Amino acid sequence: MDDDFDAALRQRYRVLDFFVSGEPLPAFLAGAAALPDPPRAAVVMGGAAARVDAALLDAVPSLGFVFSTGAGVDHIDLAECARRGVAVANSGTVYSTDVADHAVGMIIDVLRRVSAAERFVRSGLWPAQGDYPLGTKLGGKRVGIIGLGNIGSLIAKRLEAFGCIIHYNSRRPRDSVPYKYFFNVHDLALESDVLVVACALNKDTRHIVNKDVLEALGKDGIIINIGRGANVDEAELIRALKEGRIAGAGLDVFENEPKVPAELFSMDNVVMTSHVAVFTSESRSDLWDTTIGSLEAFFSGKPLLRQVLPW
Amino acid sequence: MDDDFDAALRQRYRVLDFFVSGEPLPAFLAGAAALPDPPRAAVVMGGAAARVDAALLDAVPSLGFVFSTGAGVDHIDLAECARRGVAVANSGTVYSTDVADHAVGMIIDVLRRVSAAERFVRSGLWPAQGDYPLGTKLGGKRVGIIGLGNIGSLIAKRLEAFGCIIHYNSRRPRDSVPYKYFFNVHDLALESDVLVVACALNKDTRHIVNKDVLEALGKDGIIINIGRGANVDEAELIRALKEGRIAGAGLDVFENEPKVPAELFSMDNVVMTSHVAVFTSESRSDLWDTTIGSLEAFFSGKPLLRQVLPW
Repeated sequence: MDDDFDAALRQRYRVLDFFVSGEPLPAFLAGAAALPDPPRAAVVMGGAAARVDAALLDAVPSLGFVFSTGAGVDHIDLAECARRGVAVANSGTVYSTDVADHAVGMIIDVLRRVSAAERFVRSGLWPAQGDYPLGTKLGGKRVGIIGLGNIGSLIAKRLEAFGCIIHYNSRRPRDSVPYKYFFNVHDLALESDVLVVACALNKDTRHIVNKDVLEALGKDGIIINIGRGANVDEAELIRALKEGRIAGAGLDVFENEPKVPAELFSMDNVVMTSHVAVFTSESRSDLWDTTIGSLEAFFSGKPLLRQVLPW
Repeated sequence: MDDDFDAALRQRYRVLDFFVSGEPLPAFLAGAAALPDPPRAAVVMGGAAARVDAALLDAVPSLGFVFSTGAGVDHIDLAECARRGVAVANSGTVYSTDVADHAVGMIIDVLRRVSAAERFVRSGLWPAQGDYPLGTKLGGKRVGIIGLGNIGSLIAKRLEAFGCIIHYNSRRPRDSVPYKYFFNVHDLALESDVLVVACALNKDTRHIVNKDVLEALGKDGIIINIGRGANVDEAELIRALKEGRIAGAGLDVFENEPKVPAELFSMDNVVMTSHVAVFTSESRSDLWDTTIGSLEAFFSGKPLLRQVLPW
């Protein structure tokens, strides 16, 4: 945890810190619940060290509020929280522009081979080997966005400035956008050169990019994942990359991160970052403000600005 | 040279190819000039293997037209060509969007540490070392563009979509843009977080980014060069990077390319590509069309669409 945030939090509240406790989670929760004044709110850090489920809520029944610092809420059982009257809020759109910027950077990187050319220059090969192979133009590319929420919309807005044609899939078509809607991801992939995963992870979107979708994207297509690792069937993705059935990938998230399949390390048409799309120093500072604002709203009985509901 | 282009050219014209001749340039030129029907047009390839100057024009006095496949014309003595009535044309705006896309990609890469995080993941350090240090947000950054020509304007347009504030310096202010004009590069650097070199190279712009400008940019500032290597005083840039007097750099061009100063290889806050900003497979194909179109215009006495004049 950030020192400034830690100080700001402790100035306002009594804080029980799992990360400094050194205890296993069950012992930490049991200790908290046994206090004469057990905790009423939980702040769950982005990396999802803990799942907020029936077991956790049973362990600390005094909880009335859960704030998640992450953008996704796939580690929180929203229905179970709702059933027990536990309010849930998250960081809302604090991260959205950072994720969108990173997604666009990865698209340019994969198409124009920036990181690959970087390795080429850095290893001193330029004088000996001459020109690096050409990349591909961004303008005119059809970009299919899976999930046109806040992040997806910001990606679309940025790519319009590069002359891209935007298509999308989401639970339902949006009236307010001029982009072409596809009812399913397979058809979206068929008409896309670049496929961007920008949806939340839930049971409907797990492996939403599967073998069939990769097949539909085709050998000139690239895939960008700034959603969750499990949105993509990683084994199938690696197979498609190996066999040249898709052209490349930009991945900020992985199914078993921080473990990254070693087969990807030798691929020059893949750009990988360590789940950093969501975060800059600026957004972290905004996040701490949002977290404290949410706790203050909860403890004073005011409306929660970024409440997450199970429906 | 590209096979398709070579074939298209030979279908229309008698072609003397320096690159396949195996001769030194003076011998090649002398041989061409001694032909009963000496060449009337020269196509100079982007890498500027040959300078088009008084010596070259003296060697082949039959030349009436020079087409340069590059975007820059710093290897062509425009005044000398004009004095002799030799018309000069180049690729015009064929490359502009590619250069602009690459520039934006490099800005995101440097600010968000994409290539650096890439190295981190690829070397398998993520599981052992945990989170990679945070990058910096693009939105709200003040981007100072040196040279608001075709390329600079396209960079500005793209960055507006990311919420950047655009400032610029060029020979004269432009009435048609809403960006703030700075009469000199030093003052531009003082008010910029990101400084982008997008100007042509000539005697006025050689080392336009010098020690003073780097000082004005300051320790949180980054520099992006997609112009020419010699637009930046490279020795001063390396010194400033080493001493932490600027925050980072994205460099597609170098003073003595393909030689890149080895000191840059160990810097994690520098992104380097091998003069690839100008080129994608798509733009190369456009370039060949433009080249043949220009030759046809010259040989049939029609107006040259992309003539370059010395003033």
